[in-house]
Amino acid sequence: MATEEGSKKKIEELGEKIVREIKSGKNPKFVTATRTRSNINFDPKVGYLKLGKAKEERDFINISQSKKFMQTMAIASKCHKFVRENLHTSIRGLYYQLKHSLGEDIDENIFNEQAESNPLVEDLEVALDLKREDLNLNTNRKGLLAGNMKIIDSFGGERQEIDAGKMGRSGWAIPSDVDNDIEFADVKAKYVLVVEKQALWQRLNEDGIWKKESCILMSSEGQASRGTRRLIRKFADMKFPVYVLNDADAWGWYIYWTIKTGSINLAYMGETIATPEAKFIGVTISDIEKYDFLKNLTLKATDVDLKRAEDMLSYQWINVHKEWADELKKVIKLKLKLESDALQGPRLTFVQDYIKEKIKNKDFLP
Amino acid sequence: MATEEGSKKKIEELGEKIVREIKSGKNPKFVTATRTRSNINFDPKVGYLKLGKAKEERDFINISQSKKFMQTMAIASKCHKFVRENLHTSIRGLYYQLKHSLGEDIDENIFNEQAESNPLVEDLEVALDLKREDLNLNTNRKGLLAGNMKIIDSFGGERQEIDAGKMGRSGWAIPSDVDNDIEFADVKAKYVLVVEKQALWQRLNEDGIWKKESCILMSSEGQASRGTRRLIRKFADMKFPVYVLNDADAWGWYIYWTIKTGSINLAYMGETIATPEAKFIGVTISDIEKYDFLKNLTLKATDVDLKRAEDMLSYQWINVHKEWADELKKVIKLKLKLESDALQGPRLTFVQDYIKEKIKNKDFLP
Repeated sequence: MATEEGSKKKIEELGEKIVREIKSGKNPKFVTATRTRSNINFDPKVGYLKLGKAKEERDFINISQSKKFMQTMAIASKCHKFVRENLHTSIRGLYYQLKHSLGEDIDENIFNEQAESNPLVEDLEVALDLKREDLNLNTNRKGLLAGNMKIIDSFGGERQEIDAGKMGRSGWAIPSDVDNDIEFADVKAKYVLVVEKQALWQRLNEDGIWKKESCILMSSEGQASRGTRRLIRKFADMKFPVYVLNDADAWGWYIYWTIKTGSINLAYMGETIATPEAKFIGVTISDIEKYDFLKNLTLKATDVDLKRAEDMLSYQWINVHKEWADELKKVIKLKLKLESDALQGPRLTFVQDYIKEKIKNKDFLP
Repeated sequence: MATEEGSKKKIEELGEKIVREIKSGKNPKFVTATRTRSNINFDPKVGYLKLGKAKEERDFINISQSKKFMQTMAIASKCHKFVRENLHTSIRGLYYQLKHSLGEDIDENIFNEQAESNPLVEDLEVALDLKREDLNLNTNRKGLLAGNMKIIDSFGGERQEIDAGKMGRSGWAIPSDVDNDIEFADVKAKYVLVVEKQALWQRLNEDGIWKKESCILMSSEGQASRGTRRLIRKFADMKFPVYVLNDADAWGWYIYWTIKTGSINLAYMGETIATPEAKFIGVTISDIEKYDFLKNLTLKATDVDLKRAEDMLSYQWINVHKEWADELKKVIKLKLKLESDALQGPRLTFVQDYIKEKIKNKDFLP
């Protein structure tokens, strides 16, 4: 991953290229990859969604492109400043720094709406092959972690060692940036367990599953944030198996597949945030056949759930897995959904038994 | 606050009362306070929303009440079990434990929908004068904290000391329950600062405002959770001034007034979660007159913002404050809103200067 020096250098190289083009009388050009749907593909060789080869050029001397060209340069310049100052902000903070007049004689703002600046931040990420976090732009943090490991956070220049095994009921809050000035050390675990529901994370943390089973217990707290997805990828790079425990419904499946194969919106950084190695340990509608008590704890599938199941059956990266196709067909046939919270039905601590059994029997979906 | 022993005892006393009534041939009765709108009032003497004196009785021998009576007892019994076992769950987990048949010969569930069990949990909280957290029912956690203080978390019986000054970029994640088996020690601060926006918390944490200014830096991350509101109340009990920095819009005002005076939904626990001492340090539309750069960084107020400003002007606990009435009239006249993120306009670190100046000049709204 890019160090701060690396980000600074990449922005400077872009600037120097533009200056060279101007000096040699050429039309300055900014080149980035096209991020429209037509240039996003699932690559079965790597197992995630990524950008194709289509490029987009933005010329300075072109009436329809010069404003965007100017705006992109303004963003690059601000990010260069943030990296130099070693200060971070959000894309909203960046927008407010650029929401001002072009100059005394020109009655026009650089940006009027944040909707204008956001896609240009993505253009820059792609063009420079960096994440926005490397440009000192934070995203909203979400996600919790507990386990036998240390986090060495040197944020702001002060080295702090955080013991993720001594965070009590709260856990360690997964930040936006898990790459720059941060290290993960002494990870003692057999696997990584990601649960969608925060409440279930609290339950499992109280049971101390991460101590007893020697695992890293994470919660995505709903849809996984960029930081959480990136951290899961890093654990997979360290060769830890990754298991995901979500609801058996549209939202639970979506969260899982986003962790596993990335997403359309972030296809430009699929390599750094997708974890094709991840396995879905549950819950599944098929679980009803294995655990008798679940029969009474199902809910009626909504139209959204059924529509999603139909859609998923048409995705090439899902329907190649017979186990998933069978599960989704079962959902459509029975018109049922099942929440992971239902695993607390017989007793609060049953969830850990379920997880242990599933992992022992390798009873998961790909 | 109730210790675990206290919660257990209170549930047992309720059970014993019911048993006594049955044994003496009386109709068993469950009494709780009425939580309908008509029994919720703002009490100017204490400065928060609270329940009035109206009571609600639920009789066992009454066709329209016996099912609810039975359901309430089932919840009380489960909570007693959770407290005895020293295990926690969510109200969803509780629901799944009770979503089962009444018995072999009766084809009816104790609960079919969580919408049935949730209000009965509240009935029980009110009747026992306990929070659901005291009944081992966790709520969703939200909220971050950094500062010069220690958290002693003895959750699960293992005493862990967390240094809120050594949590790097993440901060300490404020849990659901900040009363049971948890202590706050060595709080070295001049005041408590609560910011609505998580991104602004990240910004201020990076600037180390809590070190430089000696404050406790919290974020409610949007609407404040029960845990965050309760923790703010606890800081106020320790005599720390509480300042809130939110957006000048419908949502920002709502979040502030919920912290300060409580809310309709939680009027039954106003005393334990409202902080009438809180002050609003910004941002305000009046700030535009003081900080020139803000003129260009306002946004157009939405209909929701304007409607909310009108509504607030009609609330007796708001319109008694001339400063608030003036501010809201200004909003309605200018039809503008202002986000706290805009304070990063001149430079990323300006936010701290703004806060320092506001506090130094006691320039805040009540």
